[in-house]
Amino acid sequence: MFTERVRDLAHVGSVELFTPTPEESRAFFVDLLGMSESGRQGDSVYLHAWDDYERFTVKLTASSTSGIGRTYVRAASPQALERRAAQIGTGSWVEDELGIGRIYLCTDPDGHEVGLYWETERFTPSPGKGPALKNQADRFPGRGANVRRLDHVNYLSVDTPACGRFLTESLRARPTEQIVLDSGDVSAIWYTVSDKSYDLVYTNDWTGTHGRLHHVAFATDTREDILRAADVMLENGIHIETGPHKHAIQQTFFLYVWEPGGNRIELCNAGARLVLAPDWELISWTQAERAKGQAWGLKTIETFHTHGTPPVS
Amino acid sequence: MFTERVRDLAHVGSVELFTPTPEESRAFFVDLLGMSESGRQGDSVYLHAWDDYERFTVKLTASSTSGIGRTYVRAASPQALERRAAQIGTGSWVEDELGIGRIYLCTDPDGHEVGLYWETERFTPSPGKGPALKNQADRFPGRGANVRRLDHVNYLSVDTPACGRFLTESLRARPTEQIVLDSGDVSAIWYTVSDKSYDLVYTNDWTGTHGRLHHVAFATDTREDILRAADVMLENGIHIETGPHKHAIQQTFFLYVWEPGGNRIELCNAGARLVLAPDWELISWTQAERAKGQAWGLKTIETFHTHGTPPVS
Amino acid sequence: MFTERVRDLAHVGSVELFTPTPEESRAFFVDLLGMSESGRQGDSVYLHAWDDYERFTVKLTASSTSGIGRTYVRAASPQALERRAAQIGTGSWVEDELGIGRIYLCTDPDGHEVGLYWETERFTPSPGKGPALKNQADRFPGRGANVRRLDHVNYLSVDTPACGRFLTESLRARPTEQIVLDSGDVSAIWYTVSDKSYDLVYTNDWTGTHGRLHHVAFATDTREDILRAADVMLENGIHIETGPHKHAIQQTFFLYVWEPGGNRIELCNAGARLVLAPDWELISWTQAERAKGQAWGLKTIETFHTHGTPPVS
Amino acid sequence: MFTERVRDLAHVGSVELFTPTPEESRAFFVDLLGMSESGRQGDSVYLHAWDDYERFTVKLTASSTSGIGRTYVRAASPQALERRAAQIGTGSWVEDELGIGRIYLCTDPDGHEVGLYWETERFTPSPGKGPALKNQADRFPGRGANVRRLDHVNYLSVDTPACGRFLTESLRARPTEQIVLDSGDVSAIWYTVSDKSYDLVYTNDWTGTHGRLHHVAFATDTREDILRAADVMLENGIHIETGPHKHAIQQTFFLYVWEPGGNRIELCNAGARLVLAPDWELISWTQAERAKGQAWGLKTIETFHTHGTPPVS
Repeated sequence: MFTERVRDLAHVGSVELFTPTPEESRAFFVDLLGMSESGRQGDSVYLHAWDDYERFTVKLTASSTSGIGRTYVRAASPQALERRAAQIGTGSWVEDELGIGRIYLCTDPDGHEVGLYWETERFTPSPGKGPALKNQADRFPGRGANVRRLDHVNYLSVDTPACGRFLTESLRARPTEQIVLDSGDVSAIWYTVSDKSYDLVYTNDWTGTHGRLHHVAFATDTREDILRAADVMLENGIHIETGPHKHAIQQTFFLYVWEPGGNRIELCNAGARLVLAPDWELISWTQAERAKGQAWGLKTIETFHTHGTPPVS
Repeated sequence: MFTERVRDLAHVGSVELFTPTPEESRAFFVDLLGMSESGRQGDSVYLHAWDDYERFTVKLTASSTSGIGRTYVRAASPQALERRAAQIGTGSWVEDELGIGRIYLCTDPDGHEVGLYWETERFTPSPGKGPALKNQADRFPGRGANVRRLDHVNYLSVDTPACGRFLTESLRARPTEQIVLDSGDVSAIWYTVSDKSYDLVYTNDWTGTHGRLHHVAFATDTREDILRAADVMLENGIHIETGPHKHAIQQTFFLYVWEPGGNRIELCNAGARLVLAPDWELISWTQAERAKGQAWGLKTIETFHTHGTPPVS
Repeated sequence: MFTERVRDLAHVGSVELFTPTPEESRAFFVDLLGMSESGRQGDSVYLHAWDDYERFTVKLTASSTSGIGRTYVRAASPQALERRAAQIGTGSWVEDELGIGRIYLCTDPDGHEVGLYWETERFTPSPGKGPALKNQADRFPGRGANVRRLDHVNYLSVDTPACGRFLTESLRARPTEQIVLDSGDVSAIWYTVSDKSYDLVYTNDWTGTHGRLHHVAFATDTREDILRAADVMLENGIHIETGPHKHAIQQTFFLYVWEPGGNRIELCNAGARLVLAPDWELISWTQAERAKGQAWGLKTIETFHTHGTPPVS
Repeated sequence: MFTERVRDLAHVGSVELFTPTPEESRAFFVDLLGMSESGRQGDSVYLHAWDDYERFTVKLTASSTSGIGRTYVRAASPQALERRAAQIGTGSWVEDELGIGRIYLCTDPDGHEVGLYWETERFTPSPGKGPALKNQADRFPGRGANVRRLDHVNYLSVDTPACGRFLTESLRARPTEQIVLDSGDVSAIWYTVSDKSYDLVYTNDWTGTHGRLHHVAFATDTREDILRAADVMLENGIHIETGPHKHAIQQTFFLYVWEPGGNRIELCNAGARLVLAPDWELISWTQAERAKGQAWGLKTIETFHTHGTPPVS
């Protein structure tokens, strides 16, 4: 019998990124991705993608190095938040973030901080600068990549199966695709908490370091936005790591760049692809299939396997 | 306090359309929309969009006139199906459809048949004709509009508020946008059962006739697919009613055509727009706002208000 | 026997536009079309589209009203310039423009000024701001409509056949398409001096006023650029007159807006369409064909027939 | 003083390709590129791209191996054809091709046959199958890559400078971009006979074999057509060699595949890029610049340097 799974999490809300080059990183998100600044606090600047209904999409924090801070995930209801907190048990309640109410703060087995919350401040456009259509959060920027919203977070992890159990048991996420090595080890898994085909991803960290980031991805409306973004990155001296191309796994059209602080950023477009089947069967890719490269034959670039943030020597 | 709402329905699965010109209609769906035939039974031919994981997307039934038959909506679990059946109460269980198990068959207050189900047959590609990538249902057609999947159904209804109550109470759908006339009457409402911004829509039927269809929509991956489809429709003598353009309401990029049997078909693309907020606040458009036309200023065409199927005199 | 026609003109180089709102018009061209400022002189500001190899694309001149000043057309060689001047005879040599050498200044029968020239100053990017690839004129802006270059100029004229003779005889342009009314009168003709399907167009001015402008058009690389531009125009309160849609005549994908000064501006994309046949046969559209509207059925909007600049009462 | 250059050639008209797998190659051009068959004669089948005004775009000839036969280039006038023939001198007049009148047949220094002609048969659509708009040659196919027309031919040559002199002196083509090795040798040159930025290209043949082909390219209207084509190629088992990506040289958006007979085929889109300057200055790329790969960083694939047709051991 199919095990019913109540959806307790609505979606990934926002993410904190550390950067050793805060001004350059801010310029990247604002001028090249098309975000706008929606707040400042301490060493952090808050950045907002134009159709995010919440106060911020990225919290950019000046730091000695790069990497990922908290990932905020919104609960589906206040009741769901309580249920998740009760089940996880090992976290703690805090209320210390701009635009967010009570947060149940916990960590995955690899040490990445995850903050679950319900109360959230709606994004309010600057007076006289609101969108022409009232069913979008902010004015369309017409600048750079024009990213609409956060799409997913891809963590590096030393123990991917343990992290996966955290996601399925503690966050009730569903795995949709994975890579299974010839050894039988799972080297990467893609999870969804929504109808998108993935929201959170774990990839093996070959260095054995904990708490690192592979990449954070932002969604554009079209593939053309991504092709245009590639020109914008080229003109502005941003390192284009690989793409534009189409992933075989999950079929996302992608472009990977490194923002000035060193964090890998993906621009992605899924077309009309959603995982609507509640009983979607986990798809496994073999080592041989993975070795074929991306959908249209692009070989996976070496740094895609070696670069993570913060860097390790 | 926010009222928690368990999601009992996963997504709209498929729809039956009646046509007085079965051969021409079939050719439209196969040659111009890019579907393939996945079954035949009695007076019906079953058509499949390339990334639908179920057996069929459209059931096309030869009839004396046009219009809509059953809409099949998949439950989120077997338990959810039982819950819905128990709450609705007035329906009946049948098991009479190709590729679908037990169906709880009910009608909305306007008389449109809705079949809720859990058991479903997975689509199986013809031997040797499967997709290159195993995470999609069938081979990409490279033909006409290349529609990926069913997107939404827009019914006509004599009593839109009553139909809306059926959706929210019986199907636990959520309204996301609506048109409120100066009289205070709601003339159209858009509902979602998923993370898409709408799945089922009711629009007032000015003729006072029950059970009619405004349109059925299919999603393409890109807006370019829709521009290309416009050329394809033009070359093949299909009536283009309006578009391509972008809706103000829901912001969907659209093209409306009449298939040879007379039913209005929409090709649509939402970009990366989703309604991820569990507490999304219903957006109301006034009569004056509606009168402005579509997003980029296109005036709503007269037949959009008068044409429905089956036609009435 | 086919009459050989030496190509004496290379392409339309730039155009002067008058505006009663110089600051707002400049902001439109820079912020919304993606041009950059490349000079100032007197009441004029010079604007440059990113892949124009010459000093400027548009000369925007503050004035009491809107309208078009000179159209500059580059000769195919110094010898060709002399040939054209000798044949036309009625013009005069001047040397009074930024970035342009000797100009043979003449007027078409309707009074529009045309300046033929050979010597031209190459566009030089600001130091440190040049493009990443040396085969383009300037850095890709990643802003608004990102227009690449001037595409064509569409004049209004009281005597379209006379203007046409000027183009074919004096400028050696070739007509590619035209509208022939039931009366036998030609109401619009499209001419090319290049391999593009048109560069200069005349449309009847129903008001009987001389020297007016229907529109100036700029080319984008993709149709998606134009769809994005529609959003940008909407957000910035620019009047969208009609489109995006595809013309039946010449098949150009278009968007028409009115810049703040009142001049009609078209954003256009021709795809890979060129007129490569040296013996292309002029295509005539009847009044009935024209009445069908645009390629996908959009009706031609009333102001398209009535609005020109400067406005007349 | 600028040397005036009369344009004697209008455009590349069509090309003959040899294939050892005629049925599979034909299916590739018809089903996957979207061409239609427009004639048969002997061992050849003639294929037509939908907006080619002439009888055929590709002549596909069954043969023991792959490679290129004649390239047909249309003169700008009958007089221009005579002028070219008189200057070249070493060719001969033949009249042996379907849909083409007298041909002046010559060879470049590497042995590739070039046929210059003026008289040509206009393409006539099948009765009842013509396009909806009379300003295009044939009905838009809505199939596969939907290539609009031939774009360019890229030959391999043992002596690229000698071939270049043939093009500039005999065909009056203009070089627009080139690669200059550290040794001072030119390893590739791009030539135009039109306003397109290139029509004919020579690349060094490292094997020292004469008369070979690097690739033939067809233009699509959009980059999206090329992305879609990549899916189509993937689904149909066609070898995707590299792309989609954007060239640094000439900036063309490209996809390279090998048709079943082995010939490399490019799908390309130039956006709105044209070389309109009659005094365009030849752009030279150094070996170091070339080593950087394509515009967005894609490394040039090894087979791109080694594969040509017919193959050599």
